[in-house]
Amino acid sequence: MGKKPVTYELIHECKQTGARRGVIHTLHGDIQTPVFMPVGTQATVKSMTPEELKEEVGAQIILSNTYHLYLRPGHKLVEEAGGLHKFMNWDRPILTDCGGFQVFSLQDLRTIEEDGVEFKSHLDGSKHFFSPEKVMEIENSLGADIIMSFDECCPYPSTYEYTKQSMERTTRWAIRCKNAHKYPEKQALFGIIQGGFYKDLRKQSLDSLVELDLPGYAIGGIAIGEPKEEYLDILRYVAPLMPKDKPRYMMGIGSPDYLIEAAIAGIDMADCVLPTRIARHGTALTSHGKLIVRNQTYERDFSPLDPECDCYTCRNYTRAYIRHLMKAQEILGIRLLSIHNLKFLTKLMERVRIEIENDSLLDFKNEFYKKYGYTKE
Amino acid sequence: MGKKPVTYELIHECKQTGARRGVIHTLHGDIQTPVFMPVGTQATVKSMTPEELKEEVGAQIILSNTYHLYLRPGHKLVEEAGGLHKFMNWDRPILTDCGGFQVFSLQDLRTIEEDGVEFKSHLDGSKHFFSPEKVMEIENSLGADIIMSFDECCPYPSTYEYTKQSMERTTRWAIRCKNAHKYPEKQALFGIIQGGFYKDLRKQSLDSLVELDLPGYAIGGIAIGEPKEEYLDILRYVAPLMPKDKPRYMMGIGSPDYLIEAAIAGIDMADCVLPTRIARHGTALTSHGKLIVRNQTYERDFSPLDPECDCYTCRNYTRAYIRHLMKAQEILGIRLLSIHNLKFLTKLMERVRIEIENDSLLDFKNEFYKKYGYTKE
Repeated sequence: MGKKPVTYELIHECKQTGARRGVIHTLHGDIQTPVFMPVGTQATVKSMTPEELKEEVGAQIILSNTYHLYLRPGHKLVEEAGGLHKFMNWDRPILTDCGGFQVFSLQDLRTIEEDGVEFKSHLDGSKHFFSPEKVMEIENSLGADIIMSFDECCPYPSTYEYTKQSMERTTRWAIRCKNAHKYPEKQALFGIIQGGFYKDLRKQSLDSLVELDLPGYAIGGIAIGEPKEEYLDILRYVAPLMPKDKPRYMMGIGSPDYLIEAAIAGIDMADCVLPTRIARHGTALTSHGKLIVRNQTYERDFSPLDPECDCYTCRNYTRAYIRHLMKAQEILGIRLLSIHNLKFLTKLMERVRIEIENDSLLDFKNEFYKKYGYTKE
Repeated sequence: MGKKPVTYELIHECKQTGARRGVIHTLHGDIQTPVFMPVGTQATVKSMTPEELKEEVGAQIILSNTYHLYLRPGHKLVEEAGGLHKFMNWDRPILTDCGGFQVFSLQDLRTIEEDGVEFKSHLDGSKHFFSPEKVMEIENSLGADIIMSFDECCPYPSTYEYTKQSMERTTRWAIRCKNAHKYPEKQALFGIIQGGFYKDLRKQSLDSLVELDLPGYAIGGIAIGEPKEEYLDILRYVAPLMPKDKPRYMMGIGSPDYLIEAAIAGIDMADCVLPTRIARHGTALTSHGKLIVRNQTYERDFSPLDPECDCYTCRNYTRAYIRHLMKAQEILGIRLLSIHNLKFLTKLMERVRIEIENDSLLDFKNEFYKKYGYTKE
């Protein structure tokens, strides 16, 4: 067995919270953790160049979507182009999801069976079939550093019985993924812990996946619309049970409070479309909470989006100008907000890493919540 | 009388064609001519940052639109922001047009009288009135280095009688603009030569405007949809008659052949939305002609848009990737095409300047036309 493509190094545990400060080593460079990963669904983080992501935002790793790239432009085309890194001109680490979340979101457009899922493309209605083997074929072609095993993401809420069956199938699919994965020396296959909002099922899922000795694990199937208390309840139950010597990834979170809580629970990685999606709708994340820049109140406001921010946008442009761009439907408005929002989360995680090293993450959380305008938890 | 805000310095006349190689000196820096000016209609060159325009494209001056900025966000707001340069973060020269072309394009939405033009906003149907004095108020507020006098742009074709009346009114409006212009020491007011496709009217227009001793002159009312021979006929008649010691500006051209012909006729400046507009529709200008990157033929083409180009886009991305972005409606596709197209025209004009200095512009034109795929003239 050769060198592992992804390894986790623990640097420090916060004495106040137990949060982990670490490094994930990959073949495309190191990732300081906890880390937020911007999402580049269709082989591009919406509106951004790779250079902006690296130089202005400071992104260490990005996520891209298997479902979308399979449908368009097709994984074989990406492979012919030399893989996703080369195709999109990004030389840092990439993680691809497994398409499960997207396929299972198609509600009326898919049929689940033991072998896999049949679904209809959201683009043209054409029929497709994802099995664990097919998903591995796609993720192998795309060539990301971290690839996710094929899972079923249950809707919220689901019954105990359904969640149990689904979770057990997800484990069987993980085994099939491990067996089908062609490049374990180049791409690290992570397992996804399911089990919905039932702790015993989460525990069973975790235990059975840990037996597979995968190089990393993710929590799937929360942060899918449930109340925050239920998110916290499952997060705080599952995260500490996850292997300590491997990366722990919480899927699909991007709001500052969810990210801070995940770090406190011992999570190393997270991703979400939130910062770029709300940018396209004209909303900025700031140290004093969300700012809806289209609002009339900013018409003649010649201050930056966030006076405490030093990003490209805040160094050079005013709320009044960005408001004008958004009202005039100019692309530059989306770009400026995307840079700012991504940088906001990058800096938040930088700060979280420092607070972990200083054993003061809980103090920081309380201070941040107060300033940002969160009430509590 | 103080220092003039804009002066023209002739460096060399091409012995093969008579084309002018010069420098326009402005308070925001020098402009090497002949020059192509990217258009930033709504205080942004669509999809681009100022840094990209400077560093990747090499834009020396940009144009912005009085009509659009008057309606949104309003010239007074821009003035409060510290003027257009500061509002949009652009520290090189700016030219604002006079709104005439836009207002007169509104066909059923405007009424022309001696005092000015009443029109309805294309945004909300609200009524507005542009007079020469109003246009000067707006352009003074915006604060561009070069401002255009208010003119009427006749439709093509128009009768001799109507064109004559309209041209004479445009001259009377130029006089009113000169009188109303508040900052002649900071902003250079250019006159617009009208007269449609009637040479004697063009001559009358030019002579009467030259009497006003304005710091520069533009040719308006051609390149508005007429056949190319008529464009060339008027261009070649008017341009050589324009004052030699002042900048000569041909309005609204951006296709390579029109730009080369204008330079040969003795023009110094030109502008057009073409490179950014066709970018948004997925078309690239290349040394071998236009390339419609959405075409199926480029699906697996892993070569750059233009193998002879060294722009950011061509250095880093393939036709296959850009095609994917455009089909997936990703903003980055528009950005990459906009950078490439603008750089293509910037480099074309750089080359034109060198060929003028070498007295070989006609040879270059013939060579370029052949390669680009133009038949003749």
